[in-house]
Amino acid sequence: MARTHYFPEDRVHYVWDNEQEPVLTVEPGDTVVYRTREVSDGQVTPDSTAEDLANLDWEKLYPLAGPVAMRGAEPGDVLAVEVLDIHTVGWGWTAILPGFGLLPEDFPDAYLKIFDLTNGDYTFFKDDVVIPIEPFFGTMGVSPTGPEKPVIMPPGPFGGNMDTRHITKGSVLYLPVQHAGALFSCGDAHAAQGDGEVCVTGIECPMYAALRFDLVKGKSIPAPQFQTPGPLTPLVDDGGWYATMGVNPDLMQATKDSVRAMVEHISTTYGLEPVEAYALASLVVDLKISEVVDAPNWIVSSYLPLAVFGS
Amino acid sequence: MARTHYFPEDRVHYVWDNEQEPVLTVEPGDTVVYRTREVSDGQVTPDSTAEDLANLDWEKLYPLAGPVAMRGAEPGDVLAVEVLDIHTVGWGWTAILPGFGLLPEDFPDAYLKIFDLTNGDYTFFKDDVVIPIEPFFGTMGVSPTGPEKPVIMPPGPFGGNMDTRHITKGSVLYLPVQHAGALFSCGDAHAAQGDGEVCVTGIECPMYAALRFDLVKGKSIPAPQFQTPGPLTPLVDDGGWYATMGVNPDLMQATKDSVRAMVEHISTTYGLEPVEAYALASLVVDLKISEVVDAPNWIVSSYLPLAVFGS
Repeated sequence: MARTHYFPEDRVHYVWDNEQEPVLTVEPGDTVVYRTREVSDGQVTPDSTAEDLANLDWEKLYPLAGPVAMRGAEPGDVLAVEVLDIHTVGWGWTAILPGFGLLPEDFPDAYLKIFDLTNGDYTFFKDDVVIPIEPFFGTMGVSPTGPEKPVIMPPGPFGGNMDTRHITKGSVLYLPVQHAGALFSCGDAHAAQGDGEVCVTGIECPMYAALRFDLVKGKSIPAPQFQTPGPLTPLVDDGGWYATMGVNPDLMQATKDSVRAMVEHISTTYGLEPVEAYALASLVVDLKISEVVDAPNWIVSSYLPLAVFGS
Repeated sequence: MARTHYFPEDRVHYVWDNEQEPVLTVEPGDTVVYRTREVSDGQVTPDSTAEDLANLDWEKLYPLAGPVAMRGAEPGDVLAVEVLDIHTVGWGWTAILPGFGLLPEDFPDAYLKIFDLTNGDYTFFKDDVVIPIEPFFGTMGVSPTGPEKPVIMPPGPFGGNMDTRHITKGSVLYLPVQHAGALFSCGDAHAAQGDGEVCVTGIECPMYAALRFDLVKGKSIPAPQFQTPGPLTPLVDDGGWYATMGVNPDLMQATKDSVRAMVEHISTTYGLEPVEAYALASLVVDLKISEVVDAPNWIVSSYLPLAVFGS
């Protein structure tokens, strides 16, 4: 008989640590209900300003809810995590943190924007710029194996901080179990984010979610996989898209060139400050690899959904 | 008064060469109607086999229709090309060419598949695998400047062999003019292709198209840009997607890992040979950069539209 568990809000961890005692142990088919903290663990509030970002305690970032153990899970199995429900709970924030993001040399200064998330499917970036709300966990992972206690920021084959926008409601995430019991944790929820997350943040926010767990014995996958419902971008798809290309023998340079062209396009076309255009791109612009075979030059394209701009 | 020109089918070129005489000269607002050759220039026919690929004359690849001159275009201007209409004309082919593509070491042998394109919006990859038809030109570009006569394969800031799937009917492509008169050429049309074009071909085919040209004086862009109608993937979006991740500090390695996992997923889940799965991925799987900011590991995800598989 599948059970529903309520994860205690006060149980978080800030590094991966497979020696932690599990907070809960689930059986295949069980559901866990979460209310997760935003990624700064309360250091950013609806009253914060960009100046406050200088005082961030980095050891308190990524408060993950977990670990949850899956009974019987072993390395070589796959943990399946179905996102039954997920929604925002009132507010969120987006920041540029000096030294981070795709273009730190272009945007050296701290930036912070607070969002009201009480309007349902949309929030306002500015008066005439709306952002579709499509919530997901930036971080979902099983505990990596080994004696180290790695920080949360880099993702890995175990999942973790994947920041992959389409693992939304109705998706099933498959994670390769690294350690007995799987030891699943989640957090770092985003109300919105484009593919790439170019400025280093989505709309960071506390989140409600219900996740259902299953175990696939003896199925080996090299890294996370997931199934997600379509359409992928239902709230903006009808408005069309504007795309800027980067063409380069190096995919990273092509990505930077493409995003720089998009920041320039947004700021000149819509009258936003470049720093606003960069933050907006992090929330709504999707990075696609258009071609990766026409040697020696690859193309990365940044796609801007035009529906975000009021007519 | 805007005019409609009919491009002569016998005028093609196989390298970029800005010393060529233009075949046509257009004014802003003029339309040119094309019937373009497939990329092998008749070397692949509906009766060809994989063995025939060994005899390809590479100097006859990329027969481009052009150049078309835009009166008054100069470096520092932008040539705008609107895709008024584009559709396939009967058949097409997809190949794996030894030494080319994203994974040449995994797929060293030649492969060829011929497609019937007389069924409207779809063609069959196999009995129970259908491919949506969303035609576009793989190659559209202005002539690069300089005394060299570069081959067509690598794209550049001038556009060219961009292999970018969303420059479909209703799109407007913006190209930075490199040379007086712009000297636009097109060809290498595809009936279908995923973002990435991983096996090195789409469905290569002859194409009908009508393009309308405009000139934007004194607007500088660093590389091609385009506007495209939404939704981006209307023929498959309702079926949902399956995604496989590559997680790596190098974007190219992440891309390869992601595509290898997708080939494995398709072949084991749907009973296709790996080489078929690789070719199918080139036609329908989209590569997205999920995150490029969680140092030191980036994530590239391959998205498979589930609608391609018969239920």
